[in-house]
Amino acid sequence: MARSSRTVRLLFGTTLAGLVAFGAAPAQSQETRAAIEAGNKQVSAAFAKGDAAALAALYTRTAEVFPPGGDVAKGKEAIQKMFQGAIDAGVKDLTLSTVEVEQHGDTAHEVGVWTMKGPDGAVVDHGKYIVVWKKEQGRWKLHRDIWNGSTPPKP
Amino acid sequence: MARSSRTVRLLFGTTLAGLVAFGAAPAQSQETRAAIEAGNKQVSAAFAKGDAAALAALYTRTAEVFPPGGDVAKGKEAIQKMFQGAIDAGVKDLTLSTVEVEQHGDTAHEVGVWTMKGPDGAVVDHGKYIVVWKKEQGRWKLHRDIWNGSTPPKP
Repeated sequence: MARSSRTVRLLFGTTLAGLVAFGAAPAQSQETRAAIEAGNKQVSAAFAKGDAAALAALYTRTAEVFPPGGDVAKGKEAIQKMFQGAIDAGVKDLTLSTVEVEQHGDTAHEVGVWTMKGPDGAVVDHGKYIVVWKKEQGRWKLHRDIWNGSTPPKP
Repeated sequence: MARSSRTVRLLFGTTLAGLVAFGAAPAQSQETRAAIEAGNKQVSAAFAKGDAAALAALYTRTAEVFPPGGDVAKGKEAIQKMFQGAIDAGVKDLTLSTVEVEQHGDTAHEVGVWTMKGPDGAVVDHGKYIVVWKKEQGRWKLHRDIWNGSTPPKP
């Protein structure tokens, strides 16, 4: 079945690109989008510093993160531990680019794309994500966070 | 058999239990959650029948799907093509289990877990997803859809 899964991913890999070229502008305030983009810059900065505690601090108290290849990380302690694992594994240069933000009161969902670079500055992986943000004590924080990679697995 | 029961235990013992045990009940109407759960059953039924057109019809006109290992599928035609690829690769027995629904007017986001079984009924893969649903012409449809697998990559 590993073979079938790989085939599935390969076939998925043949679908069209164009994530950044989306048309319709969804409901959002520019202020909220700016706050989310600033939050994403803080994510990148924390990875660059290798600071898993700073990463966890960007999440709500009841946040859940859904990493590929692992189970849910629930709550700040588990989230910090998971990101420490990513940092230890060499994740350092991560860029998050917002494609879409749709706000509903103190909740917003964001669609975006991520790019990871290696020590030589070359892109080593890229993909997309959905984050549900919540305003907690006046500050937008990541509340639900899932992503995957777009690179087809090697045959 | 030993392997599949271990997988089942991993799924239900860790992933699902962990998600279900999450305390706070988010804002939702029971009606909306029921509609979303019914929509998920339609997804499973369409996979079981190998009907990619029926799958695509469950999505909004401006839907976007973010499959692992591939780029975004944007719009019904691209979504149908992507699911046809999955069906052709053998995806047939897919179960979606809602963990959380949070509704904001005609938008809702769902967190859930998925299980894929092989022809012998054994679980071959499992993971989690976030779907943003939109009420379109009075009917809840999938609007943004991303998932990943929870099985760690083989060393």
